[in-house]
Amino acid sequence: MKTVKIGLAGLGTVGSGVINLLAKNGALLQERCGRTIAVTAVSARDRSKDRGYSLADYEWFDNPVELARSEAIDVFIELIGGDEGPAREAVEAALSSGKHVITANKALLAKHGVALARLAEANGVALNFEAAIAGAIPIVKTLRESVAGNRVERLFGILNGTCNYILTRMKDDGQPFDAVLADAQRAGYAEVDPTFDVDGHDTAHKLAILTSLAFGVEVSFENIYLEGIRTISLEDIEAADELGYKIKLLGVALLTETGIEQRVHPAMVPSASAIAQVDGVSNCVAVQADYAGEIMLVGAGAGAEATASSVVSDLTDIARGHVFPVFAKQAAALIPNVRARMRAHEGGYYVRLNVYDRPGAFAAIAQRMAAEKISLQSIVQKRSGNPVHETKKEQGEERPARVVIITHETAEAAIRRALEAIEADGHVDSKPQMIRIEPL
Amino acid sequence: MKTVKIGLAGLGTVGSGVINLLAKNGALLQERCGRTIAVTAVSARDRSKDRGYSLADYEWFDNPVELARSEAIDVFIELIGGDEGPAREAVEAALSSGKHVITANKALLAKHGVALARLAEANGVALNFEAAIAGAIPIVKTLRESVAGNRVERLFGILNGTCNYILTRMKDDGQPFDAVLADAQRAGYAEVDPTFDVDGHDTAHKLAILTSLAFGVEVSFENIYLEGIRTISLEDIEAADELGYKIKLLGVALLTETGIEQRVHPAMVPSASAIAQVDGVSNCVAVQADYAGEIMLVGAGAGAEATASSVVSDLTDIARGHVFPVFAKQAAALIPNVRARMRAHEGGYYVRLNVYDRPGAFAAIAQRMAAEKISLQSIVQKRSGNPVHETKKEQGEERPARVVIITHETAEAAIRRALEAIEADGHVDSKPQMIRIEPL
Repeated sequence: MKTVKIGLAGLGTVGSGVINLLAKNGALLQERCGRTIAVTAVSARDRSKDRGYSLADYEWFDNPVELARSEAIDVFIELIGGDEGPAREAVEAALSSGKHVITANKALLAKHGVALARLAEANGVALNFEAAIAGAIPIVKTLRESVAGNRVERLFGILNGTCNYILTRMKDDGQPFDAVLADAQRAGYAEVDPTFDVDGHDTAHKLAILTSLAFGVEVSFENIYLEGIRTISLEDIEAADELGYKIKLLGVALLTETGIEQRVHPAMVPSASAIAQVDGVSNCVAVQADYAGEIMLVGAGAGAEATASSVVSDLTDIARGHVFPVFAKQAAALIPNVRARMRAHEGGYYVRLNVYDRPGAFAAIAQRMAAEKISLQSIVQKRSGNPVHETKKEQGEERPARVVIITHETAEAAIRRALEAIEADGHVDSKPQMIRIEPL
Repeated sequence: MKTVKIGLAGLGTVGSGVINLLAKNGALLQERCGRTIAVTAVSARDRSKDRGYSLADYEWFDNPVELARSEAIDVFIELIGGDEGPAREAVEAALSSGKHVITANKALLAKHGVALARLAEANGVALNFEAAIAGAIPIVKTLRESVAGNRVERLFGILNGTCNYILTRMKDDGQPFDAVLADAQRAGYAEVDPTFDVDGHDTAHKLAILTSLAFGVEVSFENIYLEGIRTISLEDIEAADELGYKIKLLGVALLTETGIEQRVHPAMVPSASAIAQVDGVSNCVAVQADYAGEIMLVGAGAGAEATASSVVSDLTDIARGHVFPVFAKQAAALIPNVRARMRAHEGGYYVRLNVYDRPGAFAAIAQRMAAEKISLQSIVQKRSGNPVHETKKEQGEERPARVVIITHETAEAAIRRALEAIEADGHVDSKPQMIRIEPL
């Protein structure tokens, strides 16, 4: 069979990783696909940059859109990045002119995924994106193919290596967020502007795509409830540890009676669970489905080599002649993504309060919880590690005590109202901290 | 597109699970495949048995081989079991007559996998077996497709739910092997004759198939070094726990300079690792590859529903028109499976000795280890939990003390010679226990 000819746009770490992989494992890949796979043309911002390999064998394009339209390629690999501009234009040009497309661009898919899927289908070509989510972890294939006979009930995962690295270092080294972030920036694990990672946007892009694949709904980034990890303090991490939990930034999508609950936020997971062992820059994704039960996948969430592995997995399918429905079924069959309101979320909560050490303070807090019918699993005065009891110090003493409460399952609206009331009562010296407990 | 017509042979728990899944999720599956999938004909031992659903809609065949040859079906699903007899004959008949085959029969594949792959290729049909290994876990797809651009270096996993259940219960309940096995038999987690599971044969069948997929070699069950879990005592489990390990029955395949090391044996894994949290009847498989790094998959290893999910994953591929090379490349390209000798294995070892409490005993043991150039990471007299020291009791005292040794990395041949010499010296009252430590 004839060679699969690739046009590769974007020669950063991942693009170079793909070139490196094909050079090293090309013979092996040919045997597995029954065809030769070769990069024949490339495009990047800077032709003369030293990348450690020669571009002499590749046709050069200054403009990735022209490369995408070139009749000399079969597959266009987009590793430019960005949800508009050249990346979007080039992907559209490639699909419109009948080229298969492989992309690692989660932002593009989170924003324009359904429209691009329609375009791919109209042209009878593949739009593959295993590399866009969780590096080497085969979660797209698992959702699109392995659980195709299942109704997925929940999907959750650790989808951002930067956040997981920061939370792991905070726990292991006892350093606060700002110090660990600065270290991570020096080590290259975090960007100079860390907003995109630490505020959860990157996780949300990935979750939006996975939600579509898992539940057969349109991609909706807008429907995601979003909290980042900046508010997580060392006190929270230590208290979690004492209570048998670890804090992880999770992306969660849950099928409910009122729609799909898509949320990104720090969550407590039991220390003895498998997901709690996923530390550092590793990622994981778990899928719960009616027949398969729970499948959990763990692996490298980023990096040139891991991401190149997934790009080549997508290439392998194309070389074998296999074109999958982009979001696991025809784009026209995707149903509207109806948002389940976050205030209707139900679960257990961790609450940390800095309570003034004065008579009646704890009683007032307990009453606010009771008024919302929230039952408490445990309540611990953190500094001593002993259960809280009404203190009998003389009036006027204002030194705040840290109090940590774990609730039984309750509605998000109820816990929010209770915490607002507690804050308004004036017995706490700062905004209450609230972290959701994810049942596993 | 026309309906995919299925002939299903074997209506036990998994076969009934497939019928149940297609009834419940058929509409969803049709949307994902773009075609209707329907069981149209069945075969089983007993037509009149009450299975909780009617067979009236299906054409009945007394003989599965005749069903396999029927011109009225497109896909033959073999859930009969056994590596010879009707299962083998029916699969051969189906492939020879141009039907795609899906099977959950690991014994058949471990013995005749390569010949059946050749037959499938000659007839241009699929031979899919995701359900044969680790239930719902998509390990076949991961090896055949997701890491196709990688050179796999090691593969390991917990592949037998019965053994994992027994080891988990021994640790959690402090009950010895025999008692837990009897309980497991009563609960239906272990067969009346448990040999196939507890002696590692089932794990070895699965490992043989995974090794072929991972390394591109011929399936070789014969090349597997095999130890079961009958020799694991509560003392070992307790000592492991104190040292920060859990004991798991692993299947491991490792690429070495002299060939492929395929082994099934109880192994120590660090208690804080993700694999150590895989308890009860769950399974897991980890793949280490040059670009992807380590990918670990965890899920339900058995059960009607989980296994049916994987059968239907295989069906989905066929309905979408995708036929994969059976062992990830053409059968003719599979290279001979050269066995790396177990005596050349290198790793750390846990050794438990019942040593007579007499002067010179420990010195003799230490000398035997030193003579084989085995360096010791730790040596603990188990009963007291203190480091062993030369005891100064009077001669003639013969009460044995339990001694646990952890070695640094050494060759299997060396540790075996050392233990044989220690046993021959007569300072121990029983055969030394030796358990390999699997580096993670």
